[in-house]
Amino acid sequence: MSVKTMEDLFVATLKDIYYAEKQILKALPGMVSKSDNAELKKALETHKAETEGQVERLEQVFKLLDVPARGKKCDAIEGIIDEAKEHMGDIKNERVLDAGIISSAQAVEHYEICRYGTLVEWANDLGYTDAAKLLKQNLDEEHHADELLTEIARGSVNRDAEAAA
Amino acid sequence: MSVKTMEDLFVATLKDIYYAEKQILKALPGMVSKSDNAELKKALETHKAETEGQVERLEQVFKLLDVPARGKKCDAIEGIIDEAKEHMGDIKNERVLDAGIISSAQAVEHYEICRYGTLVEWANDLGYTDAAKLLKQNLDEEHHADELLTEIARGSVNRDAEAAA
Repeated sequence: MSVKTMEDLFVATLKDIYYAEKQILKALPGMVSKSDNAELKKALETHKAETEGQVERLEQVFKLLDVPARGKKCDAIEGIIDEAKEHMGDIKNERVLDAGIISSAQAVEHYEICRYGTLVEWANDLGYTDAAKLLKQNLDEEHHADELLTEIARGSVNRDAEAAA
Repeated sequence: MSVKTMEDLFVATLKDIYYAEKQILKALPGMVSKSDNAELKKALETHKAETEGQVERLEQVFKLLDVPARGKKCDAIEGIIDEAKEHMGDIKNERVLDAGIISSAQAVEHYEICRYGTLVEWANDLGYTDAAKLLKQNLDEEHHADELLTEIARGSVNRDAEAAA
């Protein structure tokens, strides 16, 4: 892929996060089924539904730019998800596993937060106002999901995990 | 690696970020040499020196826990760095490349922010007060580095990149 202008870089990064969101959609059910804490399970299920909406918003952005909605293999999210799976496989206690799942899910959230943060800035700079609004909605949802995971960790998961022998 | 307790999970995550910091140290000179904007180049050089200090703080944390300072292969950072190299290779204009380097560097920062955020929480929960302080210093530096990159992007890099034909 040859990137010569900011428009090209914007589209390349859009394809990267589109691919990433689709990989996250595939990974989330495994994280839900391994979660034991009810609040965590519910938050991950809600985030799966949200992620489906985010994919649709990205497709709207592609449409606004008149570019086919197509992902571009994203090594970063593959690494983050592979590591999440490995971590989940290593943990032998279900309370500790809940804490590990939150940590892994937050690594995913932070990747998305940085990509959407960048895309919103660039969309505004390039005058893609409608695209910027859609991307900002995704960014806000990711921030909210990350904060909710911190609340759940602090609320019960970390304490329960620490009490686990 | 078998993780049964929160102490185990804490150490596993510490090894993960220790490996990650060392990979970042190796990747930063390539980003510095490819940067054209003087402010960006300087920020990345400063961050390399900071990263060396962060590795030392992690070694202090290992010592406090009486665990050998040893990294654990981290697929996430490898993916993030591989993607950064690929993105840098794709960009054919040096102004656009500066914007791409900031985007890639912020993906690295966000990975570190989420890992240190988690480690600080867990260290406090586990009563590792001195470790928590050291990890919080690393977290604060990563936040600051991320904010500085945003400032540099907004200050000149994004505008110059957009003006590039």
